[in-house]
Amino acid sequence: MSRLTLTDAQRMIDAGIKEATRIGQPMNIAVVDDGAHLIAFARMDGAIKASIDISARKARTSIMMNMPTGDLATATQPGAELWGLEQTSGGLVTFGGGIPIIRDGETIGAVGVSAGSVEQDVTVAEACLSAF
Amino acid sequence: MSRLTLTDAQRMIDAGIKEATRIGQPMNIAVVDDGAHLIAFARMDGAIKASIDISARKARTSIMMNMPTGDLATATQPGAELWGLEQTSGGLVTFGGGIPIIRDGETIGAVGVSAGSVEQDVTVAEACLSAF
Amino acid sequence: MSRLTLTDAQRMIDAGIKEATRIGQPMNIAVVDDGAHLIAFARMDGAIKASIDISARKARTSIMMNMPTGDLATATQPGAELWGLEQTSGGLVTFGGGIPIIRDGETIGAVGVSAGSVEQDVTVAEACLSAF
Amino acid sequence: MSRLTLTDAQRMIDAGIKEATRIGQPMNIAVVDDGAHLIAFARMDGAIKASIDISARKARTSIMMNMPTGDLATATQPGAELWGLEQTSGGLVTFGGGIPIIRDGETIGAVGVSAGSVEQDVTVAEACLSAF
Repeated sequence: MSRLTLTDAQRMIDAGIKEATRIGQPMNIAVVDDGAHLIAFARMDGAIKASIDISARKARTSIMMNMPTGDLATATQPGAELWGLEQTSGGLVTFGGGIPIIRDGETIGAVGVSAGSVEQDVTVAEACLSAF
Repeated sequence: MSRLTLTDAQRMIDAGIKEATRIGQPMNIAVVDDGAHLIAFARMDGAIKASIDISARKARTSIMMNMPTGDLATATQPGAELWGLEQTSGGLVTFGGGIPIIRDGETIGAVGVSAGSVEQDVTVAEACLSAF
Repeated sequence: MSRLTLTDAQRMIDAGIKEATRIGQPMNIAVVDDGAHLIAFARMDGAIKASIDISARKARTSIMMNMPTGDLATATQPGAELWGLEQTSGGLVTFGGGIPIIRDGETIGAVGVSAGSVEQDVTVAEACLSAF
Repeated sequence: MSRLTLTDAQRMIDAGIKEATRIGQPMNIAVVDDGAHLIAFARMDGAIKASIDISARKARTSIMMNMPTGDLATATQPGAELWGLEQTSGGLVTFGGGIPIIRDGETIGAVGVSAGSVEQDVTVAEACLSAF
């Protein structure tokens, strides 16, 4: 398996910052490796502090569940199958903004973005991925 | 009271792995004793990492509540009697996949399975129990 | 990078159990991947419960520090350079019994053993590694 | 009070990476604001994972205590005045590598470096500060 490098992570963060600037929403952006350990992080000036943890946790959730965090939103609603999932594994995030980074069919890391609306967070996370 | 042995636990895990292989869904399988302390655990290749904690927590919940975790799904919904239960005892899991192990009318341990759909998790947990 | 499989982990645990049986000291044995996530675990009948966590934490520490846990014993003493290190990274273990698993120069996992004297723990951990 | 910007933080991290490369020791480098909240972080390829938390915690400790972490080493020894301090405030680090960032007499942030010897960590942290 190939590993995600710091250079990869920083390039993705730079792309995310560029997109966040374009849409006018300062963001927190975290990139983790395939074990959910942080490689790089940036908080843009003016981005809310709660999203430091949320962005890192979105990236971590994407690794632990091996899926985008947005895919968990429906399944964890009251009455749905995974109701209460967010309590497990040290705390998972169940709304969009975390996306796995896949190379040659293997998940080698994840990016997590937070501070805007969920739609904005996803847009910026996808911009990060596009730079990979 | 008779105690669950490592040999018991490993035999149950082997049976679970066999069933998980049969249905084509890699699983995390945990077996705990009557004090909710881990005896044996296995993560099949390709099973998601979040389910390491979830499987162990399902087994632990089964001991702490002395019932299958699936029995908690309805009672912990918004407006239902045990709303918020999952916050207690260090974090409980309220969807299926954890089942107590009962011998001669006494709960001597529990098995927890996670990584597939809840239905798959329950199927594999029952396969573990069948080997006991 | 090659990955540690469940088969690898179980073979190492079996070898550890054999050595622990030979020296007459029941043990807890944990094997984690290169991200410190549990792959397999076994608690032998009669092994103390505290060592469930200690064995897993020794394996985790070996990954996080990329060294045997025994190498931390001197450096974390009062007055030494890393005094207080054990408080970091969610709690590290600074006595022997955790050893990284290295293949082709890369750390791909770690084993942690606990329940006996430190010398016994290290002996059993080395027996696990020998089976790799 | 003037605030530390992401541009400031990234410039300091770049300087730290340059120095770490020069001395041949991959590092984790964290920069926090005056509230101890993370602004930017980088883990160089090959740096140990335990130091993700340690570097951030060193930066955090520097803010919480308003001093370099190395100044705590003596005071927290057995028998010394602040014995046990590292248990407080969610866990402080009492060895060198965390340094406050001061502008016009005011602490506006801190840098934390970890993964090498304490001496190397301090050297790289000072290189970060020099770029400020």
